[in-house]
Amino acid sequence: MSVVKINGIKAYMIDKNTLLDLDKNDALKSFREEFQIPDNTLYFDGNSLGLAPQITQKKMSSVISSEWGQGGIRSWINHDWGISPQRIGNKIAKLIGAGNGEVIAADSTSINIFKAIVAALQVNHERKIILTVEENFPTDIYMMQGLETFAPSKITPKIVPSSSLIESLDESVAALLLTEVNYKTGEISDMREITRQAHQRGILVIWDLSHSVGSIPVDLNGCNVDFAVGCGYKFLNGGPGAPAFIYTAKRHLSLIDPILSGWFGHANPFAFNLQYEPAKNINRFMCGTPPLLGLIALECGVDISLKADIKLLRKKAKKLGAIFIELMRDKFKSKEFELASPLDDEKRGGHVSFRHLHGFALSRALVENGLVCDFRSPDIIRFGITPLYMRYQDLYDAVELIADVTESTNWEEKEETIALYT
Amino acid sequence: MSVVKINGIKAYMIDKNTLLDLDKNDALKSFREEFQIPDNTLYFDGNSLGLAPQITQKKMSSVISSEWGQGGIRSWINHDWGISPQRIGNKIAKLIGAGNGEVIAADSTSINIFKAIVAALQVNHERKIILTVEENFPTDIYMMQGLETFAPSKITPKIVPSSSLIESLDESVAALLLTEVNYKTGEISDMREITRQAHQRGILVIWDLSHSVGSIPVDLNGCNVDFAVGCGYKFLNGGPGAPAFIYTAKRHLSLIDPILSGWFGHANPFAFNLQYEPAKNINRFMCGTPPLLGLIALECGVDISLKADIKLLRKKAKKLGAIFIELMRDKFKSKEFELASPLDDEKRGGHVSFRHLHGFALSRALVENGLVCDFRSPDIIRFGITPLYMRYQDLYDAVELIADVTESTNWEEKEETIALYT
Repeated sequence: MSVVKINGIKAYMIDKNTLLDLDKNDALKSFREEFQIPDNTLYFDGNSLGLAPQITQKKMSSVISSEWGQGGIRSWINHDWGISPQRIGNKIAKLIGAGNGEVIAADSTSINIFKAIVAALQVNHERKIILTVEENFPTDIYMMQGLETFAPSKITPKIVPSSSLIESLDESVAALLLTEVNYKTGEISDMREITRQAHQRGILVIWDLSHSVGSIPVDLNGCNVDFAVGCGYKFLNGGPGAPAFIYTAKRHLSLIDPILSGWFGHANPFAFNLQYEPAKNINRFMCGTPPLLGLIALECGVDISLKADIKLLRKKAKKLGAIFIELMRDKFKSKEFELASPLDDEKRGGHVSFRHLHGFALSRALVENGLVCDFRSPDIIRFGITPLYMRYQDLYDAVELIADVTESTNWEEKEETIALYT
Repeated sequence: MSVVKINGIKAYMIDKNTLLDLDKNDALKSFREEFQIPDNTLYFDGNSLGLAPQITQKKMSSVISSEWGQGGIRSWINHDWGISPQRIGNKIAKLIGAGNGEVIAADSTSINIFKAIVAALQVNHERKIILTVEENFPTDIYMMQGLETFAPSKITPKIVPSSSLIESLDESVAALLLTEVNYKTGEISDMREITRQAHQRGILVIWDLSHSVGSIPVDLNGCNVDFAVGCGYKFLNGGPGAPAFIYTAKRHLSLIDPILSGWFGHANPFAFNLQYEPAKNINRFMCGTPPLLGLIALECGVDISLKADIKLLRKKAKKLGAIFIELMRDKFKSKEFELASPLDDEKRGGHVSFRHLHGFALSRALVENGLVCDFRSPDIIRFGITPLYMRYQDLYDAVELIADVTESTNWEEKEETIALYT
């Protein structure tokens, strides 16, 4: 057993009382009360869908019954619906080191990736290659491929193993598209260094912050990032399928002719002119009418992250992750579980992943027993670490449950049952 | 005064009692109770944003507190979140004469127009012109222009006055993009005849049903339409910025390589393959994670339209519109208001528009006095006709109010005030 000291506590010394004490002294403990916590559940999947803030239901009821129900169309002005994409964008900006007016909440992450790819090709218009890594989340890769299928002369996707990333940064590349925190392993890429190296070769960078925002501090302006996108329903707790966001450095804004040139991105949407003219500001990254109900729910989640302070959240998350890893190592000395995430807290984002020979069947069995986690092919089980509502004691209970379930599960039988019913 | 007989009633004979009687005998009158009716308001803007169904707040509370709050990520399966775009699509299909599996609820209308344009260019791949009319809603036109800016060799937008539409249907045109009900005048285009004439010249058709769906019966399959899109927040009462929908005739499905090729349109999204492969069915028109909260609200609205029967809705709407026009003509003999909509009920969709010299100032004054309508440049005031929750007596009260406001408003003063505060 590898014993890593966590604040002076070794894994085999961590009993439940130690963890209860950590909870008692947790500076963020009051935030748990701001969420609906599912009954009889250990929720380790906030990296996939964050839990519901208590305020969201109340706020949504008020928006539906009062703002929509009483105000109707008038609420686009009277209740500031019309500026919610910008207002929420400015709030998200504070979580990711962006400036006012550089971020807007809109559409889905996939759609925003598409906008960012096209924008990068326009700014760096003498190059055509968009580079990414095989380990990127598939939708990032798919969005390049869809554009190539339609306009092969405009874009050349290049997908390399991440081990070849740095050597692939050459002067043929228009833009690099990377996800900061790997969706399988939770490994954090070095945004500052990679961006610096890309820029040295005249390559723009697009960072996908889906697993970063609300989980780790991000410093887009400090790293001189060109474009970024991110997801509202993971660590921002914005609700299932929440609107996503897009960031663009101000220096590029005027060079971009949005391909998704809908009326809400127009300089003057209500003039109903026949010629598209992009808004001078970040609004040009909007397309259709903003999805107001989704935006309202997203804002409820974002407000909590802002109140909690992303640095405190990160500090607690690192500690939660480290203790979880140590408890797992202590419990499963047989190497049945192989850590797929970095052991180094600094390099590990908001989830801890383990490989397991029967990963799929085990993840199903865990969910059935109230430990909500998820599975990523071929053998990875992800455990989300969400410091806003996760307690230290949950780690102990989770590891005990994992031990019970692995011991009591007949893998062949379980895999047969799954095959039958899926 | 032109006197048109409406069920034997002449305009000057229509007093409030006549209208109260019509309300009393209205086969659809119970539907009004299913909506939140704003206090002290005559809501004539359901063509822009439909009112809130009573059920929406209850349903949304339950989804947030129970499905999301208790279920978390598990609800994508356990509460059928994952199939809501298809389920709602199939419901909308019944309102527009489409088949099961031909419609999906997704993204915004503008985004769906983009998908449909690209799809049409792929199916009709030897032609590049997308034809539309100057009178189309601007976002339809803008989406063509954005694509052209990025890929000018792939698309040639052609925008003609609607008076030249038929003569512009020649064999250079790949697809015709038209909105069935004109957003300014409410005039209904002849979908069957225009589609027939387009097809004769090998032209595909894309119909924008934003002002049709839930307002007039549509027969996409009967008219052999190729593609269609539409809006969820107008006559479907799906909530501000509700998800939109897209239809494709089954015969084209396999020929389309979606340009917005996000993971939710993949044949097997959770295999996380590196190569995009479109789903075999209508799912290929999805892109990112479905906006679940917006979809739930949309479904509440769609369910009411389905229950009401679109033919009955249309019948009442025609009568409401005809009476409103007659009352206006009777009240304003001076031609201060010029009807901008067709007088023929068969050719007029879900709103009645009048031109007025001081249209903008007047529309503002009406809204301030509780008659919610809207303005479209340069001089059109639109009055939405929504048979689900509109009463005949509302027409009388509206016309009385319009008379009061026009009489008491000092146009110069009003226009100065607006200029000061906007």
